[in-house]
Amino acid sequence: MKKSKTGGIPMKKCTFKTADCPIAQTLEVVGDAWTMLVVRDALVGKRRFGEFERSLGIAKNILTDRLKNLTARGVLRQVPASDGSAFREYELTEKGRGLIPVIIALRQWSGGMSHYKLVESTGNKRVRVELRTEDGRKVGLEDVRMVAA
Amino acid sequence: MKKSKTGGIPMKKCTFKTADCPIAQTLEVVGDAWTMLVVRDALVGKRRFGEFERSLGIAKNILTDRLKNLTARGVLRQVPASDGSAFREYELTEKGRGLIPVIIALRQWSGGMSHYKLVESTGNKRVRVELRTEDGRKVGLEDVRMVAA
Repeated sequence: MKKSKTGGIPMKKCTFKTADCPIAQTLEVVGDAWTMLVVRDALVGKRRFGEFERSLGIAKNILTDRLKNLTARGVLRQVPASDGSAFREYELTEKGRGLIPVIIALRQWSGGMSHYKLVESTGNKRVRVELRTEDGRKVGLEDVRMVAA
Repeated sequence: MKKSKTGGIPMKKCTFKTADCPIAQTLEVVGDAWTMLVVRDALVGKRRFGEFERSLGIAKNILTDRLKNLTARGVLRQVPASDGSAFREYELTEKGRGLIPVIIALRQWSGGMSHYKLVESTGNKRVRVELRTEDGRKVGLEDVRMVAA
């Protein structure tokens, strides 16, 4: 079985078997724990290679690979250093910010305490991920099921 | 660097650096693409080893490892075969069903079409993951930020 260069997912096999599954498609981009932790760090404002490296305790070659992959997939983009220096900085694209619900759902599942919280930009109210019907009603985990589309 | 037996995440390192991060804690359980795809399959009603194997095109030893790990972590449980045969079957625990928002968030991000949809058990209304404030207001991705807790 062929493992992808990005680690977590055996890319070729999965592409073949589940190309028509949007969950698998997402996992091809971020279905690797280091990748998701890089996204988390970018979300809390880390921008430089050294910042990610210190935060994650990750090997340089793995971090290089993950940053390159996330940039190639349009999740991160490289921007000039905010202080005018020659350092490369990374920031989440709009597509990358689209992963916020995934990050928050992962966090809610563990139920642990975090150093960070998601809040509304205006007003500082805490923001959570919820299951809602199309017409906006809140639905519990015990009241949903998967059916053929 | 030590890789965990479950593949995606270098368990020891991550436990050390991010033990206090609930996102990392979740990724230690499901931060591997195969693991998440097994959870997806269980959610759409697959129960037997052979069903997961055929659906995922996954090597037997990898599937064995993922099922064992998910059972040990309390995401799946083994139950007697529904037809009274000697086969082992697996089903999501309540803790496992708690991953539904993660699965749905992963799916919404790719935006692709799926063979399955999440609906309310009564009424068949489509269910989605949304960002909401604690008092229930819907919030857009552009209107949130992470701040120190």
